[in-house]
Parts: sequence; C-alpha cells; structure tokens
Amino acid sequence: MSSKKSNAVIGQSGGPTAVINQSLVGVIEELHQHAAIDRILGAKHGVRGIINDDFISLNGVTADLLERVAQTPSSALGSTRDKPDEAYCIKLLKSLKKNNVGYFFYIGGNDSADTARIVSEMAIKEGYPLHVYHVPKTIDNDLRTTDHCPGFGSAARFVTLAVMGDDLDNRSIKGVKIDIIMGRDAGWLTASSVLARQGDDDGPHLIYVPEVNFSDEQFLADIDRVYTRLGRCVIAASEGIRYKVGDKNSLVTEKALQGGEVDAHGNKQLSGTGALGDYLSEMVKSKLGVPLQQKTGGKLRVRADTFGYLQRSFPSIVSPSDAHEARICGRMAVQYAMKSPDVLASGSVAIRRISEEPYKADYFPTALSNVARLTKPLDTSFVINGCNINNAFIRYAKPLVGPLPIPGRLF
Amino acid sequence: MSSKKSNAVIGQSGGPTAVINQSLVGVIEELHQHAAIDRILGAKHGVRGIINDDFISLNGVTADLLERVAQTPSSALGSTRDKPDEAYCIKLLKSLKKNNVGYFFYIGGNDSADTARIVSEMAIKEGYPLHVYHVPKTIDNDLRTTDHCPGFGSAARFVTLAVMGDDLDNRSIKGVKIDIIMGRDAGWLTASSVLARQGDDDGPHLIYVPEVNFSDEQFLADIDRVYTRLGRCVIAASEGIRYKVGDKNSLVTEKALQGGEVDAHGNKQLSGTGALGDYLSEMVKSKLGVPLQQKTGGKLRVRADTFGYLQRSFPSIVSPSDAHEARICGRMAVQYAMKSPDVLASGSVAIRRISEEPYKADYFPTALSNVARLTKPLDTSFVINGCNINNAFIRYAKPLVGPLPIPGRLF
Repeated sequence: MSSKKSNAVIGQSGGPTAVINQSLVGVIEELHQHAAIDRILGAKHGVRGIINDDFISLNGVTADLLERVAQTPSSALGSTRDKPDEAYCIKLLKSLKKNNVGYFFYIGGNDSADTARIVSEMAIKEGYPLHVYHVPKTIDNDLRTTDHCPGFGSAARFVTLAVMGDDLDNRSIKGVKIDIIMGRDAGWLTASSVLARQGDDDGPHLIYVPEVNFSDEQFLADIDRVYTRLGRCVIAASEGIRYKVGDKNSLVTEKALQGGEVDAHGNKQLSGTGALGDYLSEMVKSKLGVPLQQKTGGKLRVRADTFGYLQRSFPSIVSPSDAHEARICGRMAVQYAMKSPDVLASGSVAIRRISEEPYKADYFPTALSNVARLTKPLDTSFVINGCNINNAFIRYAKPLVGPLPIPGRLF
Repeated sequence: MSSKKSNAVIGQSGGPTAVINQSLVGVIEELHQHAAIDRILGAKHGVRGIINDDFISLNGVTADLLERVAQTPSSALGSTRDKPDEAYCIKLLKSLKKNNVGYFFYIGGNDSADTARIVSEMAIKEGYPLHVYHVPKTIDNDLRTTDHCPGFGSAARFVTLAVMGDDLDNRSIKGVKIDIIMGRDAGWLTASSVLARQGDDDGPHLIYVPEVNFSDEQFLADIDRVYTRLGRCVIAASEGIRYKVGDKNSLVTEKALQGGEVDAHGNKQLSGTGALGDYLSEMVKSKLGVPLQQKTGGKLRVRADTFGYLQRSFPSIVSPSDAHEARICGRMAVQYAMKSPDVLASGSVAIRRISEEPYKADYFPTALSNVARLTKPLDTSFVINGCNINNAFIRYAKPLVGPLPIPGRLF
C-alpha cells in the first residue's frame, strides 16, 4: 500500500462461534496501532453489508465495550450465509472501492476464504490496491493448513462438558443415550467428546464420525456389546454420519428426514432438527429392545439429545486458549496485511503447533487458496474400530479445550 | 429415638440435578456431627438399593472426595424411577429394620416424598422407631410448600444462558428459532428463559408454558407479529405445552409423537426426543413460510433445538445460591430429624423466602403430606397474554439463577 491513508472493512461470515468476536476485537485493536488506517468500518452481516453499503463505524468504540464484545458469543457484526458468485463479487469490489477501502478482513470458514480469494484476485486484475485477509473461524475445525481453527476449542469444550454431564446422568438412570453433535462433514467436534471419558467405564462408549462409513448393523452390534457389559451405553454421533451405498455416500440424516432443506451453499440442513437422534433412537428401541431386555432383565430405556446451536453459542464456558488464539489471529491478520510486501499481500492466518506439552503455538500467513473451498476431514488414523477415538487425538484436542472438572464418584 | 445408636440410610431418586449431590453431602456431613448415628449407608439407585440390600458405606469418605462429589452433577448414589407400591414399601421397611436404620433421608421430588410418607406411616403403624426426611430436589420447581426447589436454580441458569447465546446466534443469522425446555407439567423452567432478555428486542420473544392452553393459530399469529417487527423470532416452549380439547388437555408432544412412551409413574416421555421441536418447526415452515417471505422478502429460516438432559446435568455452571441451598437442605433434614420430638419426627425440608433484595431465605420442616404427590404449577399471574412472562417472575427467579453475563453489542 502507498502511504496514503485508506479505510479498513471487517466482516464476519457463516455460523457464529463463542470466540468469533475475539477475532473481531483483535482486528480492531490492532488496526488502531497503524497510522495507515483511516476509518474502521464494520460490515453488517458480512458481504451483504458491503454490497448494501451497510456499515457501522468501529473507530470510536470504547475499550470497555470492545472487551465485553470479545467475551460475547456469536457474530457481533451479524453474519450471512450468502455465497458470492462473480456478479456478487463485482458489486463487492465496487463498494470497497467507493468506500476507499484498502484493507478487508473477513472472519469465517472455507467459504469466506474463497470469497476473500475471489475479491483479492479481482482487485489485482483491476489494479486496485487491496489487502484481503481471512481470519479462520469454525467450530467444525475443518480448515486446511492451520493446525486447528479458532472456535473449535470452545465448541469442543461445550461438547466435552455436555457428554461428561450426560454420562453421569446415564450412570444414575441407566439406558442407551445418543448424543448428536455438530460438525457437518467433519468428525473433529464429535471426536472431541472422547475428552469426557476419564475412567474405564465412562462414556462416551461409542463415537461415530462422518469419515467412517456408518452401518446400522455395526451400530446395533456395538451397542449390544457395550450394554451387555455395562448395562448402559452413551453414544456420540456426528450429525454428518453417512452410509456408503455403492460408490456414493448418503447422509443418515437424509434417511431420517426423507428429503430436507438445503442452504445457499448447497449444504443440507443438519442442525436445528432432532430427526437424526430420533431416528437412531427408534432403531435401537425396535431392534434391540426385546433382545437386550431378555439379556439384562430390565426394560431398555433409549433417549437421544441433539446438542444443536448451543454448541457454538453458549456463553460463559469458552476455552481460555481458544479465546486467546482467536484474538491473536485477528491481530496477526492486520500485522500481516501491514507487513506486505514482506509477507503475502493477501492471505489467511494459520496456527502452527510448536509443542504438545506444554502446548505452544505460533502463527503464520498462508495463501487464501490454501484455505478456500476444500475442507480437512478428521484423520481416520485417530479412529479405532470405527467407533472409538485414540489417545493421539486426545493429545491433540486437550490443550485446545482447556482444563476440565474431575467428577467425584462414590462407586 | 432412644439413646441407642442406629444407622442412617440416604437415597437419591428421580431425575438428577446439577446440585443433588450437594444435598447428599449436606446430609452426610451433618450426620457426622451426631453421636446417635452409627453407620451411614448410601442406597444404590434409591429405594431399589434398599430392597436389594445394595448399600455403600459413606462413613469413611474423605472430606476432599465429598467436596468433589458435591460439585459433580447427577446422583452420585445412582437414581431410580421405581414408584413403590404397598408391597414394595413392605420390603423397604423390612430392609430398613434388618439394617437397624433409624434415619432415612430421601432426596427427590414429589414421588419420593410420597414414598417417604408411606414408609414413615408404615413404621409408625408397626411401632418401629424411624425418622424419614425428604430433601427436596427437582429442576421442575413444582414441589408444594417450599418457595422453590434445589436444582431449579441451576437448571434455570443453564436455560437462561442457553437462550441468551441462542438469541445472539439468531440476531446474527436471522430466522425463527424454537427452543424446547424441560419441566413436564410445570412452566417454571421455561418461564425462567425470560432472564435471558436484557434489551427490548432481545429474545426470547415468545414464551409458552403448560399452564396456558396452547393453540396453533395463536402461536402462528404471535410469530407472525414478532417476525414482521424484528425479522426474527426466538421462542421458548415447554415440553409440556398442551391443547385443550373439550374438557380435556392433550400434550402437543403426543400429537407430534402420535403415541409415545410412558414411564413407571404413568408419565409420558417428553424428554430425549426432538419430536415436539420438529413438529412446531414444520408447522411454522408450512404455514408461515410463504406469507412471511412475501412480507419480508427473504426465505424463512426455521430451526428447533431441544435442550434435553443437558439442562439437569451440565457441569460447571451451577447457580451459587442453588448449590448453597441444596447443601443446607441436606443438613437441615438431619438437624430436624435429630431435634424430634421438638419438630416433626418425619417431614420434608422447605425453603421460605424472607426478603427479595437482597435475597434471603430460611428453612423449615413441613409434613411429608404437604409435598407428596400433588405438584405446584406455575402461577399464571406471571404470564402475560399467554406468550410472555412478567417482572414479578423475574424478581422471583433472578436470585435463584445467580449473576449473568451482560452481552456486548455493537448495534
């Protein structure tokens, strides 16, 4: 950029997280440090705010309010599910130019990184001086290049605590309990439920992720085995579990919903419905109800909970390291943009893990194309026998989730 | 009781709560203060443990472990849904006699109070010296006589935080969001979602409790009104909402499930299924999808979450006053039993509110018959227009839930 002052725009996109506002505040507080920045504009509801010229000024927001915003879950600027096509991006760039924007920071997932990529390439083509930095965010933890994604740790903390409490509940009133966990096509969040397990007979006893083909028969056999041994069974299943039919995958949820809604990105509605949990629950009741009653004597109690949007928006239980890293990612995005041409003029912030214990990480810029579009599935080397998660994953996820309570037990 | 030493039995019953173990530990630590007590026996899985002679010794449990148990959600002794009939109670008393039990403490809801009442009356009839004290516990807050029930405050805290986060989420990605909340026939827990509302346009915008007849037409008209004004609508609905058909009530869930499971107490399965949320969600989509799209321009996004068992078992976010009172209720039960004949030989512990601000409460013993069987619905004077909750309820519930975060907002 030249020494002439220009404005900065910040937007938030996609599903909110508990710490996405940490990144927002990180961007704002770092922008305050740089004389090249004139106005700091918040785009309301992401790219939609940009094309509609719907901005709020972020220059004068007090440090006190900023800190409170940082600690508030969900996108304080509003979010959008709009997936800009070429025509949309032309309007986007037009608005950025009109508003003398030299820096555009977009906090979001792989779709947002792709939008950032398209806009940055258009600007280069047109010779308009624009730095576009993507700040990673997703509870799904499925962005490429980065070790993990801001937002994941806090969602994984919610899931871990929820399954821990649920397992205690199930220990108290026994039965089969199915917990449906977010994550779309990626099993990272569901896998993190394993952190709830502290003792040998603790749940979750079975964990199903989308990266391993789901089979009704295997599922029922797994439950039968655990229930016969323990008289109870707590199951963590991803909303994205799928059957393999011939060469094709098909979502179990699709079978449960028999159709279902599709969003602007062509993604099936997986959250905000209890259909998958109820479907699996009915399957267990109808197929295992009689045999397990005969084996164990008691009536089989089967329940399902779908953790839903609470996983990404529940206040007051964020992971400390997640909150910290989300903040730093915001700051680094600005620093990288300002350091250009020494670093990439446009890019995405990624996290590199330096050491496991004690956990240490640092940050680096990466090309937008390394994060855009494609996602990173859970490494299936973490999965044991299709229904469990190994210690290597526990070592990976533990520092991201933060310290956990240790339940007190009398027997 | 005579000066001869006897044993004490403690049991936990019904749905667990986040603080039921505070009461357990309260009973244990108070029993340690009394020379009249020889062994302290924990009945595994409530009355079932007593008739099966399945006890654990609680005398030697360290103070450290007790404190950890107190802070652990769900019943550490295990729970039961058994509802003892006369024959069951005969077995119960036989086991208590055999084990030289002079004191029986039962932590539970109205069904447990009824069991306590039956056993205590049988003992009197047989001339067996037995003190039976019920320690109140229920997230439903529907026990009679007491101002409120231990367990409610923490569940209400979970609900409040969940709806607060969910409202922030809905503010960010707009739509109609339906949250299904526990409480069975009582609307206390659902009503407490009102505490999430701190600003004028905050959700929950609509609140439906079982004490007010539910009507599809009114429900849709309410949503239409809110959505037209705000472009979004967050709804808290009790799992126990019901239609009035002629002179009869029928659960909306029943219509959603078309049948459904019934437990040992004749209670319909309301939790552990997403059916009600999905049913209401489908109704809103099909009836309001087109008209609201025409009115507001955008596609109507409708989602439902059923908060499920997390409401009673989630660790680490208990209400401080709830935890404190649950502990004291346990201690008072023992003190009352020991003070006999100055107070009731058998009874239940109740909480009396002395002042609202600052909140102060004390405790008193009440006859088991004052708590047994019947429940206390939400006072409908708290309900406004069938779909909202007033400030009097907020004053009632706020001190029970504890301090809440104040979200930071940019617009």
